[in-house]
Amino acid sequence: MKGLMMDSHLTVSSILQYAEKYHKDGEIVSRNVEGGIHRYSYQDAAIRSRCLANALKRLGVTQQDRVATLAWNTHRHYELYYAVSGSGAILHTINPRLFPDQLAYILNHAEDEVLFLDLTFIPLLEQVAPQLKSLKKIVVLTDREHMPKSPLPDAIPFLCYEALIEAESDAYEWPDIDETSAASLCYTSGTTGNPKGVLYSHRSTILHAWASISREALDIGNNNTLLPVVPMFHVNAWGIPYSATMVGAKLILPGAGMDGASLCELIAAEQVDLLLGVPTIWLGLLQYCEQQGITLDPVKNVVIGGAAAPITMIRDFQEKHNAFVMHAWGMTELSPIGTVNSLNRYMSNLPLEARYTLQTKQGRPVYGIEMKIAGQDNQALPHDGESFGHLLVKGPWVATSYYKEDKSPLIDGWFDTGDVATIDPQGYMNIVDRSKDVIKSGGEWISSIDLENAAIGHPALAECAVIGVPHPKWDERPLLLAVLKEDMEISKEEIIFYLSDKVAKWWLPDDIIFVDELPHTATGKILKMKLRESYQGTLS
Amino acid sequence: MKGLMMDSHLTVSSILQYAEKYHKDGEIVSRNVEGGIHRYSYQDAAIRSRCLANALKRLGVTQQDRVATLAWNTHRHYELYYAVSGSGAILHTINPRLFPDQLAYILNHAEDEVLFLDLTFIPLLEQVAPQLKSLKKIVVLTDREHMPKSPLPDAIPFLCYEALIEAESDAYEWPDIDETSAASLCYTSGTTGNPKGVLYSHRSTILHAWASISREALDIGNNNTLLPVVPMFHVNAWGIPYSATMVGAKLILPGAGMDGASLCELIAAEQVDLLLGVPTIWLGLLQYCEQQGITLDPVKNVVIGGAAAPITMIRDFQEKHNAFVMHAWGMTELSPIGTVNSLNRYMSNLPLEARYTLQTKQGRPVYGIEMKIAGQDNQALPHDGESFGHLLVKGPWVATSYYKEDKSPLIDGWFDTGDVATIDPQGYMNIVDRSKDVIKSGGEWISSIDLENAAIGHPALAECAVIGVPHPKWDERPLLLAVLKEDMEISKEEIIFYLSDKVAKWWLPDDIIFVDELPHTATGKILKMKLRESYQGTLS
Repeated sequence: MKGLMMDSHLTVSSILQYAEKYHKDGEIVSRNVEGGIHRYSYQDAAIRSRCLANALKRLGVTQQDRVATLAWNTHRHYELYYAVSGSGAILHTINPRLFPDQLAYILNHAEDEVLFLDLTFIPLLEQVAPQLKSLKKIVVLTDREHMPKSPLPDAIPFLCYEALIEAESDAYEWPDIDETSAASLCYTSGTTGNPKGVLYSHRSTILHAWASISREALDIGNNNTLLPVVPMFHVNAWGIPYSATMVGAKLILPGAGMDGASLCELIAAEQVDLLLGVPTIWLGLLQYCEQQGITLDPVKNVVIGGAAAPITMIRDFQEKHNAFVMHAWGMTELSPIGTVNSLNRYMSNLPLEARYTLQTKQGRPVYGIEMKIAGQDNQALPHDGESFGHLLVKGPWVATSYYKEDKSPLIDGWFDTGDVATIDPQGYMNIVDRSKDVIKSGGEWISSIDLENAAIGHPALAECAVIGVPHPKWDERPLLLAVLKEDMEISKEEIIFYLSDKVAKWWLPDDIIFVDELPHTATGKILKMKLRESYQGTLS
Repeated sequence: MKGLMMDSHLTVSSILQYAEKYHKDGEIVSRNVEGGIHRYSYQDAAIRSRCLANALKRLGVTQQDRVATLAWNTHRHYELYYAVSGSGAILHTINPRLFPDQLAYILNHAEDEVLFLDLTFIPLLEQVAPQLKSLKKIVVLTDREHMPKSPLPDAIPFLCYEALIEAESDAYEWPDIDETSAASLCYTSGTTGNPKGVLYSHRSTILHAWASISREALDIGNNNTLLPVVPMFHVNAWGIPYSATMVGAKLILPGAGMDGASLCELIAAEQVDLLLGVPTIWLGLLQYCEQQGITLDPVKNVVIGGAAAPITMIRDFQEKHNAFVMHAWGMTELSPIGTVNSLNRYMSNLPLEARYTLQTKQGRPVYGIEMKIAGQDNQALPHDGESFGHLLVKGPWVATSYYKEDKSPLIDGWFDTGDVATIDPQGYMNIVDRSKDVIKSGGEWISSIDLENAAIGHPALAECAVIGVPHPKWDERPLLLAVLKEDMEISKEEIIFYLSDKVAKWWLPDDIIFVDELPHTATGKILKMKLRESYQGTLS
């Protein structure tokens, strides 16, 4: 028997329509790419988004067309989030930090016909233009005054965003859309192969937003002032453009200004109480604060994701800025939020040092996400905080497959995250390594990341990588590749001695090789696969 | 194109499974009907719920069977919430305050075969038993020690709850259930006709829980200690058994002890910070506190729904107990939450007196609920805080129809709440009257409730009711029926004079009739329809 409840669709446009009625005075403050600050309300944003929806129609965008963006976190990018998905097309946000070949691949693969881009990215467009096959129209996210000359052939219209909006009426009825249809598209670039597209639905977007505003997740309410430094071109800025709108929080969009000075200025001027971003950004911010003698007084919570937050960062935010770090973990395939390490009753009762240690873990899954760790044989491993296993997830905002790919990546209905993790008895998950990077030594696993973290503490090391290389007796053993700081000298033995009280004896690298530099991906990850190829014969 | 996201079903059992893993030490504290306090964890509750699911199977309960409960807020009733819905049957909670005829009608209409009931309600069962047609088995929510003799014919098994649980294993796999299937059933008893059943789905239950934990709604997190005094036999206790479990909040279930002394004891002993219930309960609690010189120190928020919260109550909680009142509004047909008047940026900036006045409104819809007011011609009325209109709602936890009724109550896809309300420019909704009670005078509407609230302030009045009666010139005019306090005497003119500076002149009642008593429904509402019949000729 079916329940007798309304069959209402959960759609992206419903959030903005709600905000226009109930959070209409809520502010969106944006640092312009052209300079200066733009400030308006959710009501203004809703009105302009409707004009933009009309403009999209005029540009020939129809249902489920992919519309590409290459843009910073600004109010115009925000409008695209709602106008594109809300009108039934698919918002395709592109990471400008990818290599030009990858960018071209993505634009062609998604068959984007219209691209909206910030002034910053015009040189990039020029560079990739010769490779583009589907692109028909370019819209520059600026006003008439700042409109540049087109670097492209005349056949491709080169339009001004503000002129498009101006020409349209705000009379637009958001269509009712099946909640399972695609709303947005984001490509994930691993370290191997071509980027793969993850296609979010309206339903997954709304459920993810609901889950993420809760106090057990990002804890976002109407009273908050949010500064998402995590980019809107990367997994929808962790869904903040949706979740902030749902509660009408004051939303601060930093544009291209991600340096310490620009962020500090916004935090103080707008009284930001919730920061969201990756560790690298916070390292820059903390260093700037230290140099300038600034404390981040309005900030109450800092959500850190994208990479592990070191304990020193957790401690610094707490002790120097009275700000609580919420460590989070996710993936493009998870919309992205999987776990959040939020303040709960259990953590509140811990002594401070124990709390910091707990905060270095990636946290517990938010309700909606199921999570388990499995061994090589796909058997579930115990949640004892010790057992390493492949991290598998399930839930209504987890990908089942990739755009235009037939092969399902699922194993018995579970998505393999490609991470290796532990889960402790309280359910706290800790990422130990990437599955392909973990070192399989005599049937036991060694975390390359833990070894790197231990080694990088040595004052002579600028960067390092640990890889598993084939070994005749143990299958694999760890090899440490180390880049020394300028003018530093040190012996292998000194590093081994330094590590000896930090990791188990059987974890100690079998060898250390000093190198001048390490290879990286476009987004800054070390290309360990390449290292494994280069050094595979070292221990055999 | 469909989004490529997992098609996970949102089911009631998923909440308890989640809590068992991630909130396993979270406490559920329950006042036993037999006396004393029961205390256990979400993990214990999950284990016992699985035993109970096995017991249900043994009792012959199959998919979508209705399973009835007549029970207070206790841990056993909580277990039924999960075991019944989680196993795919339908939890049918029954309000023991209904008249016996209504109870019998409901049990027969739902074709309940198994009834779980508290010791308290055995005399009631005895009373209605002769009228019951479908009931086959009775389970008493107690242990062997307290098990009474059956008052029913021997043919009807009369079982002990604890004995049932004891006999079962906790090995049970919660089935995967289509999220649109029915999970629970609650009858609403209006002032006319037979009670009507609202059939909630798994999906609506989960979405409602997600919406209600947010800071813009009931603001429930893991750190909270909740005391839902709103009964689990009435619209699922506003969904608290689901929402508290979702976040692992400490849950205090008051059993049958709803008096001031019992509540005060629990609040102090368990450090309750969030109360939820109807005004009558809080009136009792506030009076008890006043008499005993008690302040409710741990309490931070009080959610008041079910009837309008008077400004004096809002002020008392704030000024005497430092507790913020969140006024809420809902209906059985809305699962029940429609609006909540939570603390947001706008309200925080108001002076205290203006804030109290705003708090008397029922608040803004939570995200998910759409709301409008419409005139007689079904045209939307402005949100100016002045225009009275029929309150219409939409959303994924709003009923489309009633159990076993063909006729849809919807108007163009909207559910007519039967209330008349205003909505102000900030979106705050204020219930003005019931549609059938509002007085239509010369094309304008007069709120019977506002008139009653003004009149009841007179010290000589014990109770009063205002009804519209036919009038040759104005269609309807207000008539005030007043019950005087014992030994009080007063003239009609004195009451009119008392009202004259409290309401508009054209609102003043055309006549006042003193009566000894007013007729009420089983749940305490004044039967205005009966009054309108009795007094229809008064003004013509």
